[in-house]
Amino acid sequence: MEKLSVREARLADAIGRQALLQGWIRTRRDSKGGFSFLELNDGSCLANIQVVADGDLPNYESEIKHLSAGCSVSVRGEIKASGGKGQATELHAADVTVHGWADPEEFPLQKKRHSMEKLREWAHLRPRTNTFGAVMRVRNRICRSIHDFFQEDGFLYIHTPIITASDCEGAGEMFRVTTLDPENVPRDAKGAVDFSQDFFDRPSYLTVSGQLEGEIYATALGKIYTFGPTFRAENSNTSRHLAEFWMVEPEAAFFELTDNMNLAERFLKRIVNDVLANCEEDMQFFHERIDKTVMESLQTIAERNFERLSYTEAIDILEKSGEKFEFPIAWGTDLQAEHERFLTEKHLKAPVILYDYPAAIKPFYMKVNEGEVENRRTVRAMDVLVPRVGEIIGGSQREDQLDVLTARMEEQGLNTADYWWYLDLRKFGTVPHSGFGLGLERMVQAVTGMANIRDVIPFPRTPGNAEF
Amino acid sequence: MEKLSVREARLADAIGRQALLQGWIRTRRDSKGGFSFLELNDGSCLANIQVVADGDLPNYESEIKHLSAGCSVSVRGEIKASGGKGQATELHAADVTVHGWADPEEFPLQKKRHSMEKLREWAHLRPRTNTFGAVMRVRNRICRSIHDFFQEDGFLYIHTPIITASDCEGAGEMFRVTTLDPENVPRDAKGAVDFSQDFFDRPSYLTVSGQLEGEIYATALGKIYTFGPTFRAENSNTSRHLAEFWMVEPEAAFFELTDNMNLAERFLKRIVNDVLANCEEDMQFFHERIDKTVMESLQTIAERNFERLSYTEAIDILEKSGEKFEFPIAWGTDLQAEHERFLTEKHLKAPVILYDYPAAIKPFYMKVNEGEVENRRTVRAMDVLVPRVGEIIGGSQREDQLDVLTARMEEQGLNTADYWWYLDLRKFGTVPHSGFGLGLERMVQAVTGMANIRDVIPFPRTPGNAEF
Repeated sequence: MEKLSVREARLADAIGRQALLQGWIRTRRDSKGGFSFLELNDGSCLANIQVVADGDLPNYESEIKHLSAGCSVSVRGEIKASGGKGQATELHAADVTVHGWADPEEFPLQKKRHSMEKLREWAHLRPRTNTFGAVMRVRNRICRSIHDFFQEDGFLYIHTPIITASDCEGAGEMFRVTTLDPENVPRDAKGAVDFSQDFFDRPSYLTVSGQLEGEIYATALGKIYTFGPTFRAENSNTSRHLAEFWMVEPEAAFFELTDNMNLAERFLKRIVNDVLANCEEDMQFFHERIDKTVMESLQTIAERNFERLSYTEAIDILEKSGEKFEFPIAWGTDLQAEHERFLTEKHLKAPVILYDYPAAIKPFYMKVNEGEVENRRTVRAMDVLVPRVGEIIGGSQREDQLDVLTARMEEQGLNTADYWWYLDLRKFGTVPHSGFGLGLERMVQAVTGMANIRDVIPFPRTPGNAEF
Repeated sequence: MEKLSVREARLADAIGRQALLQGWIRTRRDSKGGFSFLELNDGSCLANIQVVADGDLPNYESEIKHLSAGCSVSVRGEIKASGGKGQATELHAADVTVHGWADPEEFPLQKKRHSMEKLREWAHLRPRTNTFGAVMRVRNRICRSIHDFFQEDGFLYIHTPIITASDCEGAGEMFRVTTLDPENVPRDAKGAVDFSQDFFDRPSYLTVSGQLEGEIYATALGKIYTFGPTFRAENSNTSRHLAEFWMVEPEAAFFELTDNMNLAERFLKRIVNDVLANCEEDMQFFHERIDKTVMESLQTIAERNFERLSYTEAIDILEKSGEKFEFPIAWGTDLQAEHERFLTEKHLKAPVILYDYPAAIKPFYMKVNEGEVENRRTVRAMDVLVPRVGEIIGGSQREDQLDVLTARMEEQGLNTADYWWYLDLRKFGTVPHSGFGLGLERMVQAVTGMANIRDVIPFPRTPGNAEF
């Protein structure tokens, strides 16, 4: 007998087929007519299929009438047209085999609603709920689009290292990776920790970004992207921070800032269009249950041209806006969320790419604008802002001139010797190149409207939380 | 002017087009006729395109005649048919712009061959060589096929955690992840390390496998796969071990061992077929320069049915083989590489899937065979062996019975309380399920014939090595 997923069996063209369906019971309802309705879900889609289990089935009294939320079953039968609301089909069971019970006294996911906080404690069971199933299907679709987009465009997927001895951009607090015994840390002759006895013979850390190593591959193979986990050991307990999250970082040689902007715009549009085209049912769920504005903001990304505005123009607009901001605005200061939201939501009502930021507030690797090498006033940075979400992508053209890069590093107090290989890229066949980063979880939040970033990743890591 | 990659410009249908090409010089050869040939590479393919730079170009004497290996250039001109060997086209330069020089006295990648060991020290430059360009294009193709295969088959891509407080399967030595100051490790009242002051409030580690967490998602959403970095803190300096490597782990609910075998066979065939169809030029390079047997062994995987042999049958064959093995063979012992190679290369001359291994040599989570619950003789494990490479995939059906699983854990001295969530999966709606793991780097080695695993990953991490 043919095995079908619930998604396949719900389609009208499945009517008349004999099929095997397997999954978990969501609810059971007994009819006075001596039969039962079982709502069966297998994760292939949000919706359940209704199973009609007749009282004649040999295990009807002994098993079927005891099925409850969470029990696992195999059902063989015929798919028939359904008169029920919201369903084209239903499965008339010829055989119901129970694989596993879920004692209603013990199984936590009963019909009542649970808080997101409670569900985080049950991270091993929450994917069995409607919300987390939908989040994970959309998250999967976003990941698929990320790979498809770059692969079709000729970018090579490169794995930059997770463990690294370089502190790179000084982007944030790092986790140390070690095999030293904390009970008995070895010391050298001077009494300092003897890292020569550690696994990598020196202090080593979890990466905060694959960008610098990504540049190595872009300046050899042309167009690359990384997509892997990155880490921040910051003690932030907010709805937008994780200690472990996934990041996509494309990097391309012979790419100017404008190429970078065009790539970022095409990239976001592709993801959003793919989700809208392929996750209709799940998106409808987010629209109805999570955030009423989510569809509208996705359509804005899909349909509107991204406005492009220099930082200096943006400051000018903000200064003349007449808005009352909590944080005062002046050329040279970083934009706060309130300023970004004003620009993208109120002023432009469209996604916007801000560029050419003050050098002083941006990292050393961003390219100093032409004609500004002496005073290093602005750099070729770019941030992509979208309505409702704010900044979603950050990137830049990279500094490709050895002398300017060295000056910028010294200015920021970095030890150039630590970056010998990064400087070599400018010493040997340097080229204009650019790239950006997109945090996967921020993107999943943007698409689904989920309020807390801990609810868009399977196992969130935050201060004090590394269970599972 | 249209920008073309070298790969595009080398195709005969590009003849007659005006184009911009950008990349790095591999060699320059000056003709007595007063012009120069430049070999230009941009990483889009193994081959270079020949640029013909005429002596009339304004910067011919000042720049073009000084170009050397590693210099970066933009060349505008017309693509013409070439009379040269091995090339359909060449680029007649109307303009050559130099972006970056590479002093031949300093640039390490000169024409002479460098050892693989030396190139590892130059991990930031080795992607500019033919070998590493080819490895990375093939590695990228394998990754793309991995995602395509599972996505097209309805598997969801799930990110299992990198940092974890569970030691999981005890698969190997783990790296500890910490923010404690090693100079001054905090102590509790009893003088032990006070992990409550560490970032996650307890000792935390880098994952050795996403399987157990993958099972959480498979038993909720049906079919999933993980693809992420995994870690082993083992002091192994071999050509087959890395401290950080990438692993693919599919896991599926309502999957018996036979389904798992079929999936593994289809999966390997898909990867190999995609590489053969899309990486012809790079594979030709590996065949000619790296390993003469590589094409043949790929064709074996692509074309032959995978034989299936129980462990017990395999032992019987080995015992009766008359071969002299270094390690003696007897039922209950683990197979060594020499045994595996005999089976797949000599005896069957085909890929083979061994299954039903002795329980005593396999982890607790593998399903005990039916009828053997009392003595727990064999488990539903499977290993896929391929000629020339040996074991490439390991997997199993998972133990889905709570009591048997608990007994196996106790037998292996594990604390069941640590696995409360893993046991819950058997307590609430347990289902038959199976999965396997494929190490990406082992697969890249199998496909390319590269002898050392350190040369198929961008930045290898091994004892003492975490530079870059």
